[in-house]
Amino acid sequence: MSEFFKKSLDIHKYLRGKWGIKSKVPLQNRDDLSVAYTPGVAAVSNHIAKDKNSSYLYTMKGNSVAIVSDGSAVLGLGDIGPEAALPVMEGKAILFKEFADIDGVPLVIDAESVEEIVTTVKAIAPTFGGINLEDIAAPKCFEIEEALQDIGIPVFHDDQHGTAIVLLAALINACKVTGKNIQELKVVINGAGAAGTAIAKLLRCVGHDEAACIPVADVLVCDSKGIISSDRDNLNHEKKKVLAYTNRHSRNGDLKDALRDADVFIGVSKGNLLNGDDIKLMNKDPIILAMANPIPEIMPDEAKAAGASVVGTGRSDFPNQVNNVLAFPGIFRGALEARATRITEAMKIAAANALAEAVNHISADHVLPDPLNRNVAQKVAEAVREQAIKDNVQRPL
Amino acid sequence: MSEFFKKSLDIHKYLRGKWGIKSKVPLQNRDDLSVAYTPGVAAVSNHIAKDKNSSYLYTMKGNSVAIVSDGSAVLGLGDIGPEAALPVMEGKAILFKEFADIDGVPLVIDAESVEEIVTTVKAIAPTFGGINLEDIAAPKCFEIEEALQDIGIPVFHDDQHGTAIVLLAALINACKVTGKNIQELKVVINGAGAAGTAIAKLLRCVGHDEAACIPVADVLVCDSKGIISSDRDNLNHEKKKVLAYTNRHSRNGDLKDALRDADVFIGVSKGNLLNGDDIKLMNKDPIILAMANPIPEIMPDEAKAAGASVVGTGRSDFPNQVNNVLAFPGIFRGALEARATRITEAMKIAAANALAEAVNHISADHVLPDPLNRNVAQKVAEAVREQAIKDNVQRPL
Repeated sequence: MSEFFKKSLDIHKYLRGKWGIKSKVPLQNRDDLSVAYTPGVAAVSNHIAKDKNSSYLYTMKGNSVAIVSDGSAVLGLGDIGPEAALPVMEGKAILFKEFADIDGVPLVIDAESVEEIVTTVKAIAPTFGGINLEDIAAPKCFEIEEALQDIGIPVFHDDQHGTAIVLLAALINACKVTGKNIQELKVVINGAGAAGTAIAKLLRCVGHDEAACIPVADVLVCDSKGIISSDRDNLNHEKKKVLAYTNRHSRNGDLKDALRDADVFIGVSKGNLLNGDDIKLMNKDPIILAMANPIPEIMPDEAKAAGASVVGTGRSDFPNQVNNVLAFPGIFRGALEARATRITEAMKIAAANALAEAVNHISADHVLPDPLNRNVAQKVAEAVREQAIKDNVQRPL
Repeated sequence: MSEFFKKSLDIHKYLRGKWGIKSKVPLQNRDDLSVAYTPGVAAVSNHIAKDKNSSYLYTMKGNSVAIVSDGSAVLGLGDIGPEAALPVMEGKAILFKEFADIDGVPLVIDAESVEEIVTTVKAIAPTFGGINLEDIAAPKCFEIEEALQDIGIPVFHDDQHGTAIVLLAALINACKVTGKNIQELKVVINGAGAAGTAIAKLLRCVGHDEAACIPVADVLVCDSKGIISSDRDNLNHEKKKVLAYTNRHSRNGDLKDALRDADVFIGVSKGNLLNGDDIKLMNKDPIILAMANPIPEIMPDEAKAAGASVVGTGRSDFPNQVNNVLAFPGIFRGALEARATRITEAMKIAAANALAEAVNHISADHVLPDPLNRNVAQKVAEAVREQAIKDNVQRPL
């Protein structure tokens, strides 16, 4: 680990960051300038002035996504501010480029309030074909994303939905391995932040057309005080909303109580929370997706020894890495190709299904594609693009 | 001309704009990802969290400039909106890259009010080392720029100051050709918008330390109704402010009245306004900088035939092209290298002097460097960087 810290510091300093721009056109002589800039560019501006949507064809808009963060929940480091979030956003931008040839633009924002962030994103929207919200703390991430759904381009908080989509893909394939039926799954999610909430919503088909989404049987979401239930008097507004689609049998207790009879444990919390005895409380052949970084909620060998059938983590040195890079490049590629005005719930499900199908030989140690597999994004993109057209969120041209 | 229009439309459509991003680091294997992204990047974020200014060294901030426009005054096309302004901003971004290796980021903004633009630019400021305001209509461009001078990074409206700086450089060398003394010049500026006002300010040393700036004897600014004078009752707030540093002898009348006894005509207005007889009203060996595009206020051959000594235009097919690309890349390069918190008036003068000195063999047809000369930006940058240090606007590290 510390080896990567040192290397990362060195390379960032040597190169002055990881991100740069390039010109697609030559600028060697006066004619080049006259085509790329004045007077030639006036024709392009005039064309777009007459048909705003043609900016998708004639400018960077059709291939670019802003990666917006206020630095309030960066990696596991917390509220470290916009400047300190910038290297992470640069990283995200170059992943967009590498995996989906999208021009990602880091934009770290100094803003006190939800309103300021919303105003800023709305203002810059004409430049981009999509907005990837990143590393914004819960619960304000929910408010911000909701306030931006109608601005005419997709606004997608990756910490929520990217994670949830990859997770759903893992679960689809883990069911194939274990012979479990996804509709009958009892799921425990530990962590009620951005990711935990989004996973619960996606697994319970919140906001989805019933016909297009089959919910799992039940989800229990736990925070540091135990199962989120109506008996608790310490729930904030967002956690109260979680109750509407989780805990159908009004169960109470701590994480261990929740695990009894559960089929799936999903950890988006912190390391070393569970041991083998906890896994043994669960139903036969449990599915464990322990995504705390860098130390998972339980180490894969310990979970396996206690009977876990499929184990995934957030780490690249164990099988089944739940890595957002499997989802966001393809999702935005598909959305850009459709000139989508939003990312619908059905587009998220389509992405998860495409991701699950991208695994050729499904096994306990292989429920997700390799994050470095360069073919995945294109498959996800195609599914997302098709769904956008079905959902009628394609901007006309 | 129309040949460039067609070519420009074709190439923009074929390439989907001119601007793209690139990664400076490899992303071929897991180790690459661990250095560029998680977990390695956490070390960089932690480092910057402890020392915000180090983001100049470890991220894109130290090499990037946002090119911000609301599309309210694009080229000569007027208020065509943010989407239609985007191809122009992309052009500016690739000029930044080509001439000064700066990563320019186009940001077109949908904003109703001055406040919204100011809020947005303040919010995104942590990402960038500077802000280039572009193609924003007068008078709001003045308000916006003023409101943003203390945000901790340089905010520079290129239509104002870039033009004024190149113009001053041309005038310095034109004086050497004609034997005129810059302190004794009587200057007429036709056009009281962003560029005209900024030129008048710079020539009259408004806001400058007297010791560092030698003002010309007098400037008359004309708008479509004639000379801006205290006798007029149709002056808006900004034009009233122009009176404070122009028209020292309270002259009245139209453009032709203004030209009598003038040494310099500066046109930032529209084509075909003057003829040879008008030039003959001026003092001996007049200097004509007729920058209307694509048709200058007077064609160079007609001005020369009427006795003009030095003639410059905005066009690349005549001598002495007054082109902002001579100034903005070097100015921002120097400001970034100094980690400047603002661009002072003295930095603007330093840029103009460096630009004037960059011409090797000064002659009537050669008062400015060739806009395609790749050595100019570096010379301007060095002068600007040194002046930033002298002016104590360098951010410590």
